[in-house]
Amino acid sequence: MLIAASDHRVGRSQIGALVEYQGKFMQKSPFLLNGWYCAGWSEELDRQKIIGRRLLNMPIVIYRADGQAVALHDRCPHRFAPLSKGAVKDGNLVCGYHGLAFSRTGQCVESPFGDRKVPNAAVQAFPVVERDNAIWFWPGDPELADPAAIPEFAGLGDAKGRQGYLNLKANYQLAIDNLMDLSHIEFVHLRTFGGAGCFFEGQHETRKVSDTEIWSLWTMDDVQPPAPARAAFGDQRVNHWQDMCWRAPSNLSFDMGLVPLGLDRSSAPPRMQQAHLLTPETETSTHYFYSKEQQDEPKEFDMLKIAFEEEDAPMMEACQRNMGDNFWAERPVVLATDASAILVRRMLDKMIREQNSD
Amino acid sequence: MLIAASDHRVGRSQIGALVEYQGKFMQKSPFLLNGWYCAGWSEELDRQKIIGRRLLNMPIVIYRADGQAVALHDRCPHRFAPLSKGAVKDGNLVCGYHGLAFSRTGQCVESPFGDRKVPNAAVQAFPVVERDNAIWFWPGDPELADPAAIPEFAGLGDAKGRQGYLNLKANYQLAIDNLMDLSHIEFVHLRTFGGAGCFFEGQHETRKVSDTEIWSLWTMDDVQPPAPARAAFGDQRVNHWQDMCWRAPSNLSFDMGLVPLGLDRSSAPPRMQQAHLLTPETETSTHYFYSKEQQDEPKEFDMLKIAFEEEDAPMMEACQRNMGDNFWAERPVVLATDASAILVRRMLDKMIREQNSD
Amino acid sequence: MLIAASDHRVGRSQIGALVEYQGKFMQKSPFLLNGWYCAGWSEELDRQKIIGRRLLNMPIVIYRADGQAVALHDRCPHRFAPLSKGAVKDGNLVCGYHGLAFSRTGQCVESPFGDRKVPNAAVQAFPVVERDNAIWFWPGDPELADPAAIPEFAGLGDAKGRQGYLNLKANYQLAIDNLMDLSHIEFVHLRTFGGAGCFFEGQHETRKVSDTEIWSLWTMDDVQPPAPARAAFGDQRVNHWQDMCWRAPSNLSFDMGLVPLGLDRSSAPPRMQQAHLLTPETETSTHYFYSKEQQDEPKEFDMLKIAFEEEDAPMMEACQRNMGDNFWAERPVVLATDASAILVRRMLDKMIREQNSD
Repeated sequence: MLIAASDHRVGRSQIGALVEYQGKFMQKSPFLLNGWYCAGWSEELDRQKIIGRRLLNMPIVIYRADGQAVALHDRCPHRFAPLSKGAVKDGNLVCGYHGLAFSRTGQCVESPFGDRKVPNAAVQAFPVVERDNAIWFWPGDPELADPAAIPEFAGLGDAKGRQGYLNLKANYQLAIDNLMDLSHIEFVHLRTFGGAGCFFEGQHETRKVSDTEIWSLWTMDDVQPPAPARAAFGDQRVNHWQDMCWRAPSNLSFDMGLVPLGLDRSSAPPRMQQAHLLTPETETSTHYFYSKEQQDEPKEFDMLKIAFEEEDAPMMEACQRNMGDNFWAERPVVLATDASAILVRRMLDKMIREQNSD
Repeated sequence: MLIAASDHRVGRSQIGALVEYQGKFMQKSPFLLNGWYCAGWSEELDRQKIIGRRLLNMPIVIYRADGQAVALHDRCPHRFAPLSKGAVKDGNLVCGYHGLAFSRTGQCVESPFGDRKVPNAAVQAFPVVERDNAIWFWPGDPELADPAAIPEFAGLGDAKGRQGYLNLKANYQLAIDNLMDLSHIEFVHLRTFGGAGCFFEGQHETRKVSDTEIWSLWTMDDVQPPAPARAAFGDQRVNHWQDMCWRAPSNLSFDMGLVPLGLDRSSAPPRMQQAHLLTPETETSTHYFYSKEQQDEPKEFDMLKIAFEEEDAPMMEACQRNMGDNFWAERPVVLATDASAILVRRMLDKMIREQNSD
Repeated sequence: MLIAASDHRVGRSQIGALVEYQGKFMQKSPFLLNGWYCAGWSEELDRQKIIGRRLLNMPIVIYRADGQAVALHDRCPHRFAPLSKGAVKDGNLVCGYHGLAFSRTGQCVESPFGDRKVPNAAVQAFPVVERDNAIWFWPGDPELADPAAIPEFAGLGDAKGRQGYLNLKANYQLAIDNLMDLSHIEFVHLRTFGGAGCFFEGQHETRKVSDTEIWSLWTMDDVQPPAPARAAFGDQRVNHWQDMCWRAPSNLSFDMGLVPLGLDRSSAPPRMQQAHLLTPETETSTHYFYSKEQQDEPKEFDMLKIAFEEEDAPMMEACQRNMGDNFWAERPVVLATDASAILVRRMLDKMIREQNSD
């Protein structure tokens, strides 16, 4: 009996072995399922054709069928081989172990042996959208996967060659904390951005736009320019700002700039805009995708790489190792500068609690 | 009080500390205990003199006393040092930590210090037989260890220099599956044996000789010869077969050949015979011993090595990582080509269940 | 509200988040808490300025404030960064993540951001004493930390350049066993001290001075000198002794010598005195600090290094891997030569049991 892919709605209601599996990870998760996560850069997929990657603790395979990105559960239901070890053929993903082929909906559509009967089997398919050089992945209810909800990031689409990746051995929430509380710059980034003391003289404000959008605004008026801007501004005092915006579940954008005293932000030329897209790999590791708008010199991107890989990451990873599994159970001391980070944690915790109580 | 080794029957009823330990692994095991497993190649033992190896999740030491292979629990009952770090002296194995000596029955027969009293202690001894360049190990009831039950393997005794070893990071049953379902050749072995499409045109038959002997027979009549035979046969169509035979617990023999149309099997010259001896190391790793009859070119053995190490092993190991601990709990989809592999699993599962319900 | 460090008694009664944490490790521990442990060599601290090290399974940071060694819990209560990644400033330890500063009592005394309010927070401070080139650490009740109880070690203070360190992947009690039962020398140290057979001809005595001081005395009269003394003594028979002294919790001193027949010990010139300071890192790993008095040739210290790193350590680590977690549960066979080691185990077990039953 041949079962055409089109006969099946693929998504939450699955067939065969997957129902069980789905039961394990779909109904309850330590992560927010209804949200867009970055699964990789388009350039990676151009290069590799097939990406096998653990996302939210699930093995996921990503490939393109007729130019369109597809995300499936990376586990053949026959012998559990990762489909990412297979090949794409006529828009289907063919398992590299015994040749079962799966359509973009996850339905098994071909079996090369024996009586040629196609088994009534499927792997879960996930909504996926390719936009702005990034592949966006939705692990939750497909009915709710609205591409319009994918956040915009200034410069992301033009950031070719200014995209980085870091495999962080820490929970993604530690990375959100790190970004929402930029006061760490004065201590962690001594070799790159920090050390000028701007943050000691500035104001910090938390602005909640909605339950899924929170800003952490650092305003430093009439300060010495930070180290990387010293070449352009010398000793001239400046108005400086660093604005970080979190959007649920864990995509952050950053806007940093400085202007001579008396000018307003719109006139700022050496402005830096970054995306920080944090996708849980496991509960203690994170795919940390970052990008930077194109306008600047390559060496500035190299400085980002040093800042993130050699300064931020070792610190976050040391905290993870030192912390145990449960942040709140450790009863962290809360400082005024934590306001934005704590608010994001509360929003995320609330949404995940609601999801898991259904 | 000196206790001569000969005063003691060594085997299922042990003395001292070992009884406890034995209780843990002898009565219940995830592996079939009453069966012959390959513990190593004779050449290894010639070279190393003493082999310490984990077999069925037990530390085992193998050495020769007066030319005869001996297998003991690799753990001195005094301070738990591996006896494999010791030395053989006068046919006894002397612990390398404090010098207790153990006879081939596992009885402690010498203590070099103090009052020279020999402690009433022993390590478990296991039946072991050296045959056909292989060392055969029996982890179960010594009363039932019949050397006549060691399976014969064509060419094994002459396979000197054609014996391989692979430490596979996967459960041994995944390796049995892989051998009983040779349809994977068309997908996994593209660089070596596969890709000619013979299996797509053939017939597959499962033949159960007994609960402990099952054949998986692949008959491919009037097909293109597979890649490795192209040099000898060119485009001439052939009758081709690949016969795999499993004998409990996990020793497989393989007979592969091809003849020009019209000839029968007995006339086949380029025939390949292999042994695949799979011994559990732990529940997720396997000592994979393989051999090939001597008649062929060394480069053919090299091709086997590539096929097993670079094609089979990575796939089986990826399945293991992707699968979790319990094969059946994952509810695998079953194809027609799985018939032999599934039958072996059922036989093994049944025997292990019976063993553990005693 | 600024809280001066001097306002707070730091020690057993802690404030804020630490109370919880303290509850976990202070009241119960698999290790003896009320005792002096070596935390490192003074030379290490000279070189590194800040040492982060796991001691008794707790992350500890050691640094000097105004020349005086300080030991704190190596975990900032704010975001759990290891304080050992920070810097010492004005005698305080400044966290390298967000700049909270802690005094030598563990009290947070400075917060660089926002309203400049110093959080009512502290990390646990531990009594620490620097003496004889070693840093001594007291993990238990500070009220009981009497520096007079730090054991004396002959030559330790003069052992500059004769101090070694080994990270042993075995429980510290296996290392105590190894030292209290020197009969292993004849088997384990064949490349260095052993092999002459002296121990086979000697007497072994256990002398208990108190619950916290036990001697293991090996007296070998009228024997061949051991290998390292052969150059000096040739074939001349000697009186030889090896005295090992354990003092709780796990600091051992060793005195070894030999004299020509007829002379008494005081006349022995080539005498070897060592300290073996064993500090639990985790339950299965040990900081093994050792030293040797200065008088001898550097090549003799090199021989010690070989003996400990290449002979003792691999054997103890193999025992650890082979043993499981619980020594007594494995029902070790006890030999006469184990008397001292077993007595030390009994004393330690008793003290730890009493500590944990409070």
